[in-house]
Amino acid sequence: MLKLFYAPNACSLASHIALAEAGAEFEAVRVDTKAGEQRQPAYLAINPKGRVPALVTPRGTLTENVVILGWVAQTYPDAHLKPDGDFFAFSEMQSFNLYLASTIHVTFAHLFRARTVGIAFGAKVPSSLKDQWRLIEDRLSDGRPWVCGQQYTVADPYLYVFARWLERDGAGGSDGMPLTRAHRARMQERAAVKKVLAAEGLEPL
Amino acid sequence: MLKLFYAPNACSLASHIALAEAGAEFEAVRVDTKAGEQRQPAYLAINPKGRVPALVTPRGTLTENVVILGWVAQTYPDAHLKPDGDFFAFSEMQSFNLYLASTIHVTFAHLFRARTVGIAFGAKVPSSLKDQWRLIEDRLSDGRPWVCGQQYTVADPYLYVFARWLERDGAGGSDGMPLTRAHRARMQERAAVKKVLAAEGLEPL
Repeated sequence: MLKLFYAPNACSLASHIALAEAGAEFEAVRVDTKAGEQRQPAYLAINPKGRVPALVTPRGTLTENVVILGWVAQTYPDAHLKPDGDFFAFSEMQSFNLYLASTIHVTFAHLFRARTVGIAFGAKVPSSLKDQWRLIEDRLSDGRPWVCGQQYTVADPYLYVFARWLERDGAGGSDGMPLTRAHRARMQERAAVKKVLAAEGLEPL
Repeated sequence: MLKLFYAPNACSLASHIALAEAGAEFEAVRVDTKAGEQRQPAYLAINPKGRVPALVTPRGTLTENVVILGWVAQTYPDAHLKPDGDFFAFSEMQSFNLYLASTIHVTFAHLFRARTVGIAFGAKVPSSLKDQWRLIEDRLSDGRPWVCGQQYTVADPYLYVFARWLERDGAGGSDGMPLTRAHRARMQERAAVKKVLAAEGLEPL
């Protein structure tokens, strides 16, 4: 059986929701990142990067949300978690997911680090986040319900992670990113999302 | 025909080499990032993220190295640029590529930014880069010639980008990361790499 290593409300929430949406049989194993469990030898043997998520499969371990999301979408085709079409359509979805991984996530990481190293570096973050988020709001501005259009895909739970983080440290201001917040509300109506929030001990926002 | 937008010695070098290795017909278009061309409306119309690489195809535009590398590997199967096997094997390769994108590249970005915002933030970077690179050296330590083993894949040109960057701003020290440097030397023996270095106006290192 699959084993997903996650921390509550961390970016691993995306892979957690994707597995639930896919109807996969899996065990979710909580990693206590606040206590530094991810840097202990037991966890480093699972994922030497010392991060969540990690998905242990009978074939080996996959790390990085973008990879796990892509693998889930390809491996459970009946769940229709990727855009219809060929590998190009899949790649377009992954371009969006990479933007979340290599730009949006990184900006949040700066913001959260600013709490410990002083405000000087982090102060600029909410404004650069707003600039970076414009691409996401633009994408949602044609009235589409989901990131890839009418088709719900694994890009949606990944966006949902960062839509939740808008409430952390004032990152999103009080009313920034309105289309993303509406997307967040749609996500929270889904049965799989409700189930995973409960499993991680999280509230809808 | 495919059109690759790149900047010399930027991370787009990975996609550039991959296309050459695949034997793809493509035009390489230089973006003058030093003059800020990537933030001009003409380029933003191609890639709203304002970054290289961008690959324009008859189907639409793909961005982000990890995505372009994956698409090239899947689209030109005769070039054997991914591990043999199914989508799981492909995903394992992509886990490595994501580590380069979301960890190694980000650390270099901090280092390069340190030149402009002062040394305080960047001073720690060479040591954290060395820590992060341990995973890469460990992977190469079984004598394998390439990232995924005996099979050369698109992960190799991506690693090569950052292996080149070890020479920038003292990032790699004078003799750090020896197995990666040996990998770099192997890369530079390949015909496709020689051709692309010449096209970008770069020297082997």
